Amino acid sequence: MEGGSDVILLDLWISVFGARVRIALAEKGVRYEYREENLPNKSPLLLQMNPVHKKIPVLIHKGKPICESNIIVQYIDEAWHDNSPSLLPSDPYLRAQARFWADFVDKKIYEGGKKIWTTKGEDQQVAKKEFIDLLKMVEGELGEKPYLIGESFGFADIALIPFTAWFYTLNTIGNMSIEKECPKLAAWVKRCMERETVSKNLPDPHKFYEFVMKMQGQ
Amino acid sequence: MEGGSDVILLDLWISVFGARVRIALAEKGVRYEYREENLPNKSPLLLQMNPVHKKIPVLIHKGKPICESNIIVQYIDEAWHDNSPSLLPSDPYLRAQARFWADFVDKKIYEGGKKIWTTKGEDQQVAKKEFIDLLKMVEGELGEKPYLIGESFGFADIALIPFTAWFYTLNTIGNMSIEKECPKLAAWVKRCMERETVSKNLPDPHKFYEFVMKMQGQ
Repeated sequence: MEGGSDVILLDLWISVFGARVRIALAEKGVRYEYREENLPNKSPLLLQMNPVHKKIPVLIHKGKPICESNIIVQYIDEAWHDNSPSLLPSDPYLRAQARFWADFVDKKIYEGGKKIWTTKGEDQQVAKKEFIDLLKMVEGELGEKPYLIGESFGFADIALIPFTAWFYTLNTIGNMSIEKECPKLAAWVKRCMERETVSKNLPDPHKFYEFVMKMQGQ
Repeated sequence: MEGGSDVILLDLWISVFGARVRIALAEKGVRYEYREENLPNKSPLLLQMNPVHKKIPVLIHKGKPICESNIIVQYIDEAWHDNSPSLLPSDPYLRAQARFWADFVDKKIYEGGKKIWTTKGEDQQVAKKEFIDLLKMVEGELGEKPYLIGESFGFADIALIPFTAWFYTLNTIGNMSIEKECPKLAAWVKRCMERETVSKNLPDPHKFYEFVMKMQGQ
């Protein structure tokens, strides 16, 4: 099996975007060298490999960089095409749906979640309601299916599941229960967490909470 | 050939995102029914087909909606796989590169361009410099190649080329010459515009300028 230092991941333990890549590599059984970055002091390799955005995660495969987590996950699916499972379905319409929801997470869920711990009072109440509304849209897509798109765990699930490591923080700071508000989503989280590829690669929810508290000087 | 009312595009003549879809459909030789939307009064069909973002363009294929322009273009490439040309290359690394630059346009070029006509004075000077810097990054990728990724016109080119219909407006409002600042990009624009699929599907630069002026009440 290909792997080892042919495949290097520049990452950060707390990154929800990095977690997507770690899950995809684990699903495909790709061995890789993990390199933790220090964001206040980015490595010359990171700046060289991602000169445009200067952000983790970056996957370096045979010396060549791939950037932006959803793009990296699709790359992993295509470069290790022969390793099962396929992360994207084969049907063009389902592929478009998977991409749509992965894109929705980037455009809506990330900012929507962050807003809850960066606001207070009335603004926070609005942010909470908006975030639950976003999650309910995801639940609308999920319906009675086991995973977001099709019958098996894949691209859209990988895009969203890392953000569930934020739920403890959001519940605590926002004094709410996402699980009660969105029971179908909660069942989906449980289903995903039964996969070692997921449970071993998400940031620890309590450590994430400590991180946010520290960031806010609390 | 499939087409006709099997394929409906909800769009707006001025939309750079819609132009991507029109170019992709033209490249693949797909016939479609064009329906102009009225944004202040969106059609029930648009709201039904894109309940999440409520935005054009939406491609409706056999009654099923596909949303978000870069996702639609990939869908067109995959659903009409047998129609040449392929819009994405076959090599996984080049596919990732094409996606990276299409994503770059969404994340950087759109806001970067808009900033020039929504600011004044010092802020506008900064916005102009930042926008040229973004275009120079694109030129860095372009190098001596005829198109952004690989040897043929494709996904990344389709993502960017509609925005060149803004250049007349940006040059006029910003009192600058993007073509002089970025000669390699200017040559690429000329090369792309030789394709009827492109030249017939971009918003008219002068009408776009009038639109922006009107929007600003000038």
